[in-house]
Amino acid sequence: MIVNFTPGPSQLYFTVEDHLRQAIRKNIGSLSHRSKEFEMISKEATEGLKQLLSIPSDFHVFFTGSATEVWERSLQNLVEAHSFHFVNGAFSKRYFEIAGLLGKHPTKVEAQLGNGFDFEVDIPTNTELIAVTHNETSTGVSIPKDFIGKLRTKHKNALIVVDAVSSMPFPQFDFSIVDSVFFSVQKGFGLPAGLGVWIVNDRCIAKAASLQQKGISIGTYHNLPTLLANAKKNQTPETPNVLGIYLLSKVVADFLGRGISAIRSETEYKAALLYNCLENHPTVKPFVENKAWRSKTVIVADTGSKTEAIVKLLNSKGYYPGDGYGELKKTQLRFANFPAHSKEQFETLVDLLNQID
Amino acid sequence: MIVNFTPGPSQLYFTVEDHLRQAIRKNIGSLSHRSKEFEMISKEATEGLKQLLSIPSDFHVFFTGSATEVWERSLQNLVEAHSFHFVNGAFSKRYFEIAGLLGKHPTKVEAQLGNGFDFEVDIPTNTELIAVTHNETSTGVSIPKDFIGKLRTKHKNALIVVDAVSSMPFPQFDFSIVDSVFFSVQKGFGLPAGLGVWIVNDRCIAKAASLQQKGISIGTYHNLPTLLANAKKNQTPETPNVLGIYLLSKVVADFLGRGISAIRSETEYKAALLYNCLENHPTVKPFVENKAWRSKTVIVADTGSKTEAIVKLLNSKGYYPGDGYGELKKTQLRFANFPAHSKEQFETLVDLLNQID
Repeated sequence: MIVNFTPGPSQLYFTVEDHLRQAIRKNIGSLSHRSKEFEMISKEATEGLKQLLSIPSDFHVFFTGSATEVWERSLQNLVEAHSFHFVNGAFSKRYFEIAGLLGKHPTKVEAQLGNGFDFEVDIPTNTELIAVTHNETSTGVSIPKDFIGKLRTKHKNALIVVDAVSSMPFPQFDFSIVDSVFFSVQKGFGLPAGLGVWIVNDRCIAKAASLQQKGISIGTYHNLPTLLANAKKNQTPETPNVLGIYLLSKVVADFLGRGISAIRSETEYKAALLYNCLENHPTVKPFVENKAWRSKTVIVADTGSKTEAIVKLLNSKGYYPGDGYGELKKTQLRFANFPAHSKEQFETLVDLLNQID
Repeated sequence: MIVNFTPGPSQLYFTVEDHLRQAIRKNIGSLSHRSKEFEMISKEATEGLKQLLSIPSDFHVFFTGSATEVWERSLQNLVEAHSFHFVNGAFSKRYFEIAGLLGKHPTKVEAQLGNGFDFEVDIPTNTELIAVTHNETSTGVSIPKDFIGKLRTKHKNALIVVDAVSSMPFPQFDFSIVDSVFFSVQKGFGLPAGLGVWIVNDRCIAKAASLQQKGISIGTYHNLPTLLANAKKNQTPETPNVLGIYLLSKVVADFLGRGISAIRSETEYKAALLYNCLENHPTVKPFVENKAWRSKTVIVADTGSKTEAIVKLLNSKGYYPGDGYGELKKTQLRFANFPAHSKEQFETLVDLLNQID
């Protein structure tokens, strides 16, 4: 038995194998994306997500190829010139860079790796989109709940877009203060990669339409008006990853059956277990020092010279941690804490880490 | 036993179920896209395709989310202002429209539905990209082999881009006269949807780089320089449809085992069988009259008032034809003739059609 703690693609949710076998029996791989059956599947996935994450009815749920695609599409559809980015790691930085590649004029504030933003930040008044990476997968820093609320109060006109790639479905966002949230399915949903989910409100739709009216290109088959027109029929503009959408609909139903509160409190429990171990460990430490910034879903450990020994021990038990990101590859390990990871697995993980001195 | 003759998503190739089961056992759904194992899978898929389709070594094979995505990416990366489109159906028309949505200045020549291009066509001398839809999926018209050769002779400087979405792997293109070919996997490769394959030569790479140098946006994570930099490591810029790439690698290996010549001659045989039936049928006729334009891989029948009766009879035997496209939904049927469809299935199909009078 292998347990994959990499932060994505990660461990598959335990029901996925059965759903895949069922998909084979039901011929899902051969199903037309213009059929009534597909529309039912697509509707089940989007309505299930709305229920699971308490997404209000004036928000829309769209499918893309990846969350990386949403970086591009969100800037293309929601920004004429000025986006503002909170950057504290490789992924929030990439979101910022994408804006430049699209010919926009992004600005950013940068925090040191392992840190959040506890200092005053001046966001230009002409900012159209504020990009917040809720959970920086490279460093294990998460943005505290009240952070977005403060942004909303000060910047009523900007669209607030939240990259929640490696935290969903754990956080319950207040959708009255965010305009868009996106994630991909191979992390917290425990699914095979190849599908992004993009949630937007009507302010986003209106902004895209206004850019288009000004003659600014907002892309083609995956611009917001086209995504919306198709989503109203529970369809997609292109032939999508039908199998991926089917599996998502099934895992969302499983999560609903288990209950989102149970999933969230188990996530808290497992995170507490591992952080507690790291804090009391003789040689290994949590990378993120400030407790308020510690991600519950991607936990990064400073493993220093013990890295190799830990990996060797864990692998011998079938446990596979994620490497540290980029330059920290050799001195850190990352542990995903997703609904696919059980309490028992986290208890064993902690036991194993405690064997290292 | 169900046989799906829709032109895509279509019948799965008969080995796909086993490969999916194998993928479950091998934990492919959980595999990191930055792992050596993924690089091996990706390499197997691209090198297998190069061998299968006799793609020269100076061409590159990239993965996208869909062929629809390649419509957008090809125009974004290869055209500053002027593309030219041969339009003879809904899909070639959509490729043309995408150019306009990107702010380019496309021109087109249009042939009537069911026809190809046998008249003189003036292509503006400033044309940067000539778009040829090799197989118009909506009408079952295919472009004859010598057509592209003549284009190349007259337009040496333009990039010739071939949409071969619903014909691959049947046609053997002469890669010395085309610059780019693309397709999606849910048609001729008999795979679940959610993956596009984009083949380009170094002229395309150079064109994209020159546009970028001029400050023209060529997109971000899926622009050609970024795709190339990642493909050199057998990786992709984003987390891709890993399972889809794995299944592609396996089916390509199966096709190589069967032999592309055998696949091609069986395709010819099955097409001849069905066209012969339609030509000699008392009430049903081939939609495409000119034999030189008849697609071997998507065969469209004028079924008129018999449409419902034919569908009923076929469905009763587990055979599912594709509807006619758009306005012709009620009076035409489309039959995919892909490697997944056996000779025996085509023989039965013809027997059934002959029961209609």
